[in-house]
Amino acid sequence: MIVLFTDFGTRDPYVGQVKSRLAEHAPDQPVVDLLHEVPDFNPHAGAHLLAAFAAGFPPGCCFLAVVDPGVGTPREAVVVLAGGRWFVGPDNGLLSVVAARHSDTRIWRITWKPAEVSSTFHGRDVFAPIAAGIARGAFPADKLAPIARLDVEFDAEDLARVIYVDHYGNAWTGVRGVARDARVTAGGTLFKHSECFGQVGKGEGFWFVNSVGLVELAVNRGSAAAVYGLKVGDAVQVQRLN
Amino acid sequence: MIVLFTDFGTRDPYVGQVKSRLAEHAPDQPVVDLLHEVPDFNPHAGAHLLAAFAAGFPPGCCFLAVVDPGVGTPREAVVVLAGGRWFVGPDNGLLSVVAARHSDTRIWRITWKPAEVSSTFHGRDVFAPIAAGIARGAFPADKLAPIARLDVEFDAEDLARVIYVDHYGNAWTGVRGVARDARVTAGGTLFKHSECFGQVGKGEGFWFVNSVGLVELAVNRGSAAAVYGLKVGDAVQVQRLN
Amino acid sequence: MIVLFTDFGTRDPYVGQVKSRLAEHAPDQPVVDLLHEVPDFNPHAGAHLLAAFAAGFPPGCCFLAVVDPGVGTPREAVVVLAGGRWFVGPDNGLLSVVAARHSDTRIWRITWKPAEVSSTFHGRDVFAPIAAGIARGAFPADKLAPIARLDVEFDAEDLARVIYVDHYGNAWTGVRGVARDARVTAGGTLFKHSECFGQVGKGEGFWFVNSVGLVELAVNRGSAAAVYGLKVGDAVQVQRLN
Repeated sequence: MIVLFTDFGTRDPYVGQVKSRLAEHAPDQPVVDLLHEVPDFNPHAGAHLLAAFAAGFPPGCCFLAVVDPGVGTPREAVVVLAGGRWFVGPDNGLLSVVAARHSDTRIWRITWKPAEVSSTFHGRDVFAPIAAGIARGAFPADKLAPIARLDVEFDAEDLARVIYVDHYGNAWTGVRGVARDARVTAGGTLFKHSECFGQVGKGEGFWFVNSVGLVELAVNRGSAAAVYGLKVGDAVQVQRLN
Repeated sequence: MIVLFTDFGTRDPYVGQVKSRLAEHAPDQPVVDLLHEVPDFNPHAGAHLLAAFAAGFPPGCCFLAVVDPGVGTPREAVVVLAGGRWFVGPDNGLLSVVAARHSDTRIWRITWKPAEVSSTFHGRDVFAPIAAGIARGAFPADKLAPIARLDVEFDAEDLARVIYVDHYGNAWTGVRGVARDARVTAGGTLFKHSECFGQVGKGEGFWFVNSVGLVELAVNRGSAAAVYGLKVGDAVQVQRLN
Repeated sequence: MIVLFTDFGTRDPYVGQVKSRLAEHAPDQPVVDLLHEVPDFNPHAGAHLLAAFAAGFPPGCCFLAVVDPGVGTPREAVVVLAGGRWFVGPDNGLLSVVAARHSDTRIWRITWKPAEVSSTFHGRDVFAPIAAGIARGAFPADKLAPIARLDVEFDAEDLARVIYVDHYGNAWTGVRGVARDARVTAGGTLFKHSECFGQVGKGEGFWFVNSVGLVELAVNRGSAAAVYGLKVGDAVQVQRLN
């Protein structure tokens, strides 16, 4: 399985261009669109999202992960094997959190240069062929060189910020699961805890541990982003009481 | 075939998380994204949309239908067989219109609780595995119990309201096909009938029976929603003359 | 491979309805969503986008191309074979640019009328079954009649206008690759050239030849559409110095 995780946009042609290339190189592999709206130009938020999502996907799957404002500059391209899953993308920090959170991590630099390559679309021309090879079990050793560590490494501890806002207006944070008696504050508001939406009043705000294990801020039948003015990058305070 | 019908949002990661689970449990089944922008938190509009779409899909297909603001509360989860098609989702009315419109309808409650279940994402953890089993012909009888009727039942007659607005600004109603001499009024405007867009002037409003048999309000090369201020929930008057 | 290129919208149910039909008629063919946000009601921009994208897809693939404000009126429906790739869609100019840019082009009119056809959704009822037949190698000769030329033909030379704005705010033009010393002006601004985003300052505008060979206007880590007020249809001046 190939899992796509990008900021290419849901409505733009970039994903289809990548999928055509994947269909050529790995026609029998299922391709899952996980997210194409990683906050634009923001590998930092993306790195924490990717690390949270990874465990929910089957071992052996290959993530094509591209948030790459530096495409075409001398930044490197890499393959990471961490926790039994593969990740292909730029060496700009995007893969660094999932890499740091596993003890068995291995890393390769992509040394291959395709004959034809767009200087703005390595997702199609470089990462897709590499990911396709890995997904179909043909590890492209001749296009890779093992390296000891990534060039760009973000702090792999929790990120106490909003890292994603969904279409309901729910605000995901980069803070991993905490006990229900934790104190969660954002935008000057102390949020109560609830297990689910239907246990608070309509229009009421709360926090919960979401389906990938992150603290998330929400409003029952409303938009936490609108009610509390939350946006990607905003600081969140999470105080563990135990 | 598994058909996805949700309010998970086109741009969010929820659909991809569900598809990963479907790929694990029913790897050979095609999955079609029908709609992920059912009006948020609105199983009533969703129920009428779902009933209108169903007939256009092949017998035996399985709809994974999730508009579920009550996820995590004691609302039940169900499987419905109606008109030869399967529907898996919450017992909050969403499946009730298609269920009521067929005489051969059978209903089961989902009694199974997965070992790991998010209290906010039954689409992934409960409905996806059940739908996958049904789609690949392995009816999960051990996870279900037959019941006589749904807990929540909406009126299955036509719904004289706007139930969906598409990206062009066309406004779908919950009123099923009427003769072309019907009088259709919305937002204080009487709409003329036209068979198609190109038979009225540019910028002119009209109504037609759309591709799933519902009365729809539109503007040729424009947005009916913008011109007439139409939104989901607005009342529509349809007067049949015959 | 069937490639979808439409203005059906990413978030609406129309694409899913088409895919269900394709799955019935060509269950083994991969389907790639290239673009569903061709500018609404704008076959002119669409024609230039389609011609630019085509070469990046494998020979023998079949494009289902629908931007069709005249659906239901007497406009014809056609199949085009150009450059070894198939195109199915309305005869309103949308296929005319790719047709004119190849010397081996062949054209057929679709003479078939399905038993049941919506007068507003030929994408599902007419174009999908035809495209499915072509994609699986069952050329539907009995539903087609060869014709010498299209009814509607746009100028197939470069189009010096903005033809697409992506979610980053990058503005694609219909001008094909020019040397890096060309002078590119839009909205009264002379743009500098850069090979890629990371070689100009943050917030700085530039032009480049994009991944399908078109001149594109962009801002590093920003939106060219917002900064320069660019939208589809705006004139662009490209002066070649060589």
